[in-house]
Amino acid sequence: MNKKIFKYQNTLTGVDLKAVIFKNHRISIADVAMPVLQPNEALVKVSLAGICETDLSLLNGYHDFSGIPGHEFAGTVVSAPDNPDLEGCRVVADINCGCGQCYVCRIGDYRHCPHRTVLGIRGRNGVFAQFCAIPVSNLYAVPDRIKDNEAVFAEPLAAALAIDRQEGIGEKSRVAVLGDGKLGLLCALALRQKTADIVLIGRHPEKLRIVEARGVHTVCRQKGSAFESLEMNPEKFDVVIDATGRPDGINAALCLVRPKGTVIIKTTSSEKSVIDLADVVVREVRLIGSRCGDIKEALDFMERKRIEVGPLIEAVYPLDDFARAFAHASKSGSRKILVRP
Amino acid sequence: MNKKIFKYQNTLTGVDLKAVIFKNHRISIADVAMPVLQPNEALVKVSLAGICETDLSLLNGYHDFSGIPGHEFAGTVVSAPDNPDLEGCRVVADINCGCGQCYVCRIGDYRHCPHRTVLGIRGRNGVFAQFCAIPVSNLYAVPDRIKDNEAVFAEPLAAALAIDRQEGIGEKSRVAVLGDGKLGLLCALALRQKTADIVLIGRHPEKLRIVEARGVHTVCRQKGSAFESLEMNPEKFDVVIDATGRPDGINAALCLVRPKGTVIIKTTSSEKSVIDLADVVVREVRLIGSRCGDIKEALDFMERKRIEVGPLIEAVYPLDDFARAFAHASKSGSRKILVRP
Repeated sequence: MNKKIFKYQNTLTGVDLKAVIFKNHRISIADVAMPVLQPNEALVKVSLAGICETDLSLLNGYHDFSGIPGHEFAGTVVSAPDNPDLEGCRVVADINCGCGQCYVCRIGDYRHCPHRTVLGIRGRNGVFAQFCAIPVSNLYAVPDRIKDNEAVFAEPLAAALAIDRQEGIGEKSRVAVLGDGKLGLLCALALRQKTADIVLIGRHPEKLRIVEARGVHTVCRQKGSAFESLEMNPEKFDVVIDATGRPDGINAALCLVRPKGTVIIKTTSSEKSVIDLADVVVREVRLIGSRCGDIKEALDFMERKRIEVGPLIEAVYPLDDFARAFAHASKSGSRKILVRP
Repeated sequence: MNKKIFKYQNTLTGVDLKAVIFKNHRISIADVAMPVLQPNEALVKVSLAGICETDLSLLNGYHDFSGIPGHEFAGTVVSAPDNPDLEGCRVVADINCGCGQCYVCRIGDYRHCPHRTVLGIRGRNGVFAQFCAIPVSNLYAVPDRIKDNEAVFAEPLAAALAIDRQEGIGEKSRVAVLGDGKLGLLCALALRQKTADIVLIGRHPEKLRIVEARGVHTVCRQKGSAFESLEMNPEKFDVVIDATGRPDGINAALCLVRPKGTVIIKTTSSEKSVIDLADVVVREVRLIGSRCGDIKEALDFMERKRIEVGPLIEAVYPLDDFARAFAHASKSGSRKILVRP
């Protein structure tokens, strides 16, 4: 573990940092005051950050967020007054910060604390900035074998791996992933490690090729075509993952899942979904909401080189070019856009 | 086991039977020809049959059903040419008749056979009749300790008990049942055997009193009032069962279930539901469709007198009075209406 000791804590007082600001559906870049660390928080220098679909939603009003966005990152602890051993550590973070006091936190489920803040998403400034304050208990040291441009995928990869924890994908499981967005690609790559009978259904041949190279079957559907028109058996799959990002993705998933099968829902749309629940009842299908995963598991996975995230990266922009980076990430079919503060 | 041998098989040829007919949204009573038994079917004389919410839906067009409805019953085998030992047996039945040939049937999941017929619901005449043909493999002998007016509850009780099989209700589970209809009451009574921390939320004080007498907590809500206005903590329950029969019941269930909790969906509405799936994802809730259960388990449950279904019966009508029985069953707040052919 890289543990060079930085001596920022005495030199940063009164210094400004450069950050992206979301406010009233607008993006700006501004110099803001260095955050004042709360007890057991660390100041992290952000090395690299990733733009996620959730960031796109935040600008459109999701969670009424206003402040510094960004939650996928790799960085280095530059100051941790209560835990000075951490200074110099390369880190990534679990994005959910529980209150630590309530019943939900006390039983260890801080990710669902009703009073939680979420890095760059809910009540807490994020990582599209030179520096960011993060509770020490949320930090995970990044092993030396994992580069920054891999570590930045720890959070979404953990979310992809969470599916296996929730549902237990076996080597005989027949799995379909709907949507070749960034999370869909990661889900396909992660679950390919569990079963060879996995298909990614998407609309972008060049993105499908990334997972094909790793042994994932793919189906390319025409824009606007119904999932029902795909040349595959309906009710075929044991597990279907909806990573379409669209409110009607759930209905495509329901077409493909077998009776008593499972649909894992990854889509968080601001629009509501219209669902025939009688079909869910009659076929006794299970629908499971799936959000975050275990960062440690994702780091282990990457350290053992079980996934190659390089082909998922489309471009790296300097933080000053954030507006352009964001426009690029918003384009249909784009892969992961990274930002370097 | 009651095994008086009946000698109907030679005397019934050419005899008509009286039956209820649903056709074009209309109810009639007619004399129809005795069914011709297929291989491995038994002719069952219906002793008592129950009217279920699904029957109400069928008349309104659910499954485009046309024929003799009815699937809850107790009866006696009067003829079983391929299994003569069964003659004289008191029986109830699993209502799903798989094709026996397809992949789904071969792995033992005949209840989800895509080609299945369902007694009185889909492609097969039911039990609102003097006699009914049923595959022998669907029949279950009724133990002597269980009376006909109890045995008629075997099918819906099995559906209620299925919840525990799907979700594993423990003695510390906090459970809410939404809806004090016939199935809601059975769910509350059945799951009370698993946990004392169970509440039935309904709108009919006289029905709530039935389950209160068996140790189920109850909450009576005003007609039209929102579930959110109930004086109970939101996100309180580990498991919430939607037995409201209403397309928006799912949203009430989502208000009450805790993060990572489970909603069991029993409602089969012909209307679609509008759901905020982002909430399901963020709180990682599980939604499980739940239809039929294990008839043998329900009979065991009743034989051990673990449930008292007597108070659930509102009235018994002769088959000739079916239109009146059906109107009674359709009234909001009615308990179980039975029909005696």
